[in-house]
Amino acid sequence: MAQRLAAWTQRTKRSALQDMLELTSGPEYISFGLGLPSTECFPAEQLAISAGEVLLRQSDPLQYGPPTERLKRQIQLLMSERGVTCSTSQIFLTAGAQQGISLLARLLLDPGKTILTEEVTYTGFLQAVEPYQPRILTVPTDPVMGIDVEQAEKVLQTGERPACMYVIPSGHNPLSYTLSREKRQRLAQLAADYEVPIIEDDPYGFLAYEDSEIPAVKSFQPDWVYYVGSFSKILAPGLRLGWIVAGGEIVEKLSIVKEAADINTRTLTQQITANFLQKDEFTEHLQHLRQEYRSRRNSMIDHLYTQMGDYASWTTPSSGLFIWVRFPESVDTMELFRESIATEKVTFFPGNIFAVNESQMAASSVRLNFSFNNHDKIEEGITRLSRLVNRHRK
Amino acid sequence: MAQRLAAWTQRTKRSALQDMLELTSGPEYISFGLGLPSTECFPAEQLAISAGEVLLRQSDPLQYGPPTERLKRQIQLLMSERGVTCSTSQIFLTAGAQQGISLLARLLLDPGKTILTEEVTYTGFLQAVEPYQPRILTVPTDPVMGIDVEQAEKVLQTGERPACMYVIPSGHNPLSYTLSREKRQRLAQLAADYEVPIIEDDPYGFLAYEDSEIPAVKSFQPDWVYYVGSFSKILAPGLRLGWIVAGGEIVEKLSIVKEAADINTRTLTQQITANFLQKDEFTEHLQHLRQEYRSRRNSMIDHLYTQMGDYASWTTPSSGLFIWVRFPESVDTMELFRESIATEKVTFFPGNIFAVNESQMAASSVRLNFSFNNHDKIEEGITRLSRLVNRHRK
Repeated sequence: MAQRLAAWTQRTKRSALQDMLELTSGPEYISFGLGLPSTECFPAEQLAISAGEVLLRQSDPLQYGPPTERLKRQIQLLMSERGVTCSTSQIFLTAGAQQGISLLARLLLDPGKTILTEEVTYTGFLQAVEPYQPRILTVPTDPVMGIDVEQAEKVLQTGERPACMYVIPSGHNPLSYTLSREKRQRLAQLAADYEVPIIEDDPYGFLAYEDSEIPAVKSFQPDWVYYVGSFSKILAPGLRLGWIVAGGEIVEKLSIVKEAADINTRTLTQQITANFLQKDEFTEHLQHLRQEYRSRRNSMIDHLYTQMGDYASWTTPSSGLFIWVRFPESVDTMELFRESIATEKVTFFPGNIFAVNESQMAASSVRLNFSFNNHDKIEEGITRLSRLVNRHRK
Repeated sequence: MAQRLAAWTQRTKRSALQDMLELTSGPEYISFGLGLPSTECFPAEQLAISAGEVLLRQSDPLQYGPPTERLKRQIQLLMSERGVTCSTSQIFLTAGAQQGISLLARLLLDPGKTILTEEVTYTGFLQAVEPYQPRILTVPTDPVMGIDVEQAEKVLQTGERPACMYVIPSGHNPLSYTLSREKRQRLAQLAADYEVPIIEDDPYGFLAYEDSEIPAVKSFQPDWVYYVGSFSKILAPGLRLGWIVAGGEIVEKLSIVKEAADINTRTLTQQITANFLQKDEFTEHLQHLRQEYRSRRNSMIDHLYTQMGDYASWTTPSSGLFIWVRFPESVDTMELFRESIATEKVTFFPGNIFAVNESQMAASSVRLNFSFNNHDKIEEGITRLSRLVNRHRK
């Protein structure tokens, strides 16, 4: 019995790597693979209190309902920390950042249209646009300097008018860079000059580990940037809650697209989250989270330095959950990954997973997550990785 | 600043009716419009207990996670009540039935393909398929007998091979019929004979008000029916939780589509729901719900009979949340609705909202929801509606 599915699904399949990561979730493995936040850092007790308050004292958290205004006001306050001034009518609630990207893709992309992004970028974006089979223009990017804005301008100067540009300016996934203020300004200006909207994916924007936070790209050009935010990394992914900041016209269209996709975002977790955000505890929670992640980042970098300092290189990320580690070009990290499954049992993402096309730089790099494991596991995992790479070099 | 959006969005806009329903949500209105479950019947206290248990005693309800196996096992048990035997690997969790339909549409529809449905049907299905601009074939339908299966067969005999047929066999929204066992068998056979899959939308399947429950269409033909279920009407829509039962190959493809759409279904509400379902209280809750809705249905029908028995007609629904009321053909219910906003302040959906093309039968009918309001409000609302129709007839 062969059932006919849409043509694009023929080319789509679960990646073998995804399967492998599932197979390697046992306790004998140390995972630097997935971008998981720390389970110990979830404010479970406070959310339980908040859930009780919402379910027992408020009206209708279980009913169909419009997006919770109270939560939008909290997001409005959060956005001011990112340098963005907006009204609650410009905030659209989603079931996480991935849904934000997916709804924007649905709104912006006609089948076969063009999009502009970096040659190494977040795979979830590529998945979200896949049904529209876009032509993907890429510009060079770099784990230190980030997206090459000059090249982006050159592409636009040739007359290309992509449906959107996609960027992750803070704590880039996977490259871990944080884009400078100057480059953000230039990117924003490009969007306005060439009338090409930017999707600014900012799940890590509130996880800055240094004193100076760089404002969101949207702060420089409100009209041409659609900002995508998320509670997954600063509160808990299990809530599946995120938001888009965009113009009123876009928000209205998004509400139609979302109604068709899943009616609305769950009122229950919206209200639980709004309740918690209103308390001072959230500020404390976020400070604690930054401190803990900074410390885990430092720990991973210390061990990388001690054990692989002579042949691997990386940049200390000032935001996000990842360190992008480059090995000599002779090292094929996909092969490294396969070996690791059988021997050292430490998991990570080989860089080429994130390359839109094959990339030599990515092929000899890995993405390591530093937020999920505690200090002991980080040390043990880097030790295993070092042994693995050492064997591989010989 | 004109931003370019995908072409299909130009034709999409919020319906004026949707706007009007929002404007008329004040306490002076009685709403028979939206398909809301009863707020008083939500098991808020039990869900609060369940939320506390999950957040304080279980691991990882807040983390990214695969679909909760425990919840799938509970759904497996529920499905056996609908006559469907399935394994948990054939169950796919969604953020409500609308997401189920939307993901299936994405999987089944290439742009411009054909679908087959009734001439009067659930508008959320039409919204879900809209981005793919399908050619929509309709067959006649009827508030008493339901979808005309013979006509469906005739369409298939002409050589048409739609990408799917869409049906709501129990407590049809909006027509309120429940399809006979014989017609279900014939529909299922059609799907297999002509290799055209059926999307069986069954949000009301567990809300049968008479003793005899009719098995799901899927029970007659597991291979060619994709079953879409939901907790929105039997537990709470605010949880945004539903499921699809389909073959393993389809489930695998769905997981790829869903990952691109919103990563995964929230582990938190999945676990809260699984916890509650495991308790005997859920069976009690469902019995209570059926009893209460049966009583509200009877109340609405009593008042309809007393006040409009001489010029309106309806069938007593054996499932679902709606009564489809037909007036003489001279009555234009869209006009009735506009008048009601200004005068009697009772809201309902004019039948033509649900007509794929204009329909005389639908134009003189209304869909009334009987689950949301208590007995007093039902009486008052039907009294207002009766005054309105009476004025309108003169």
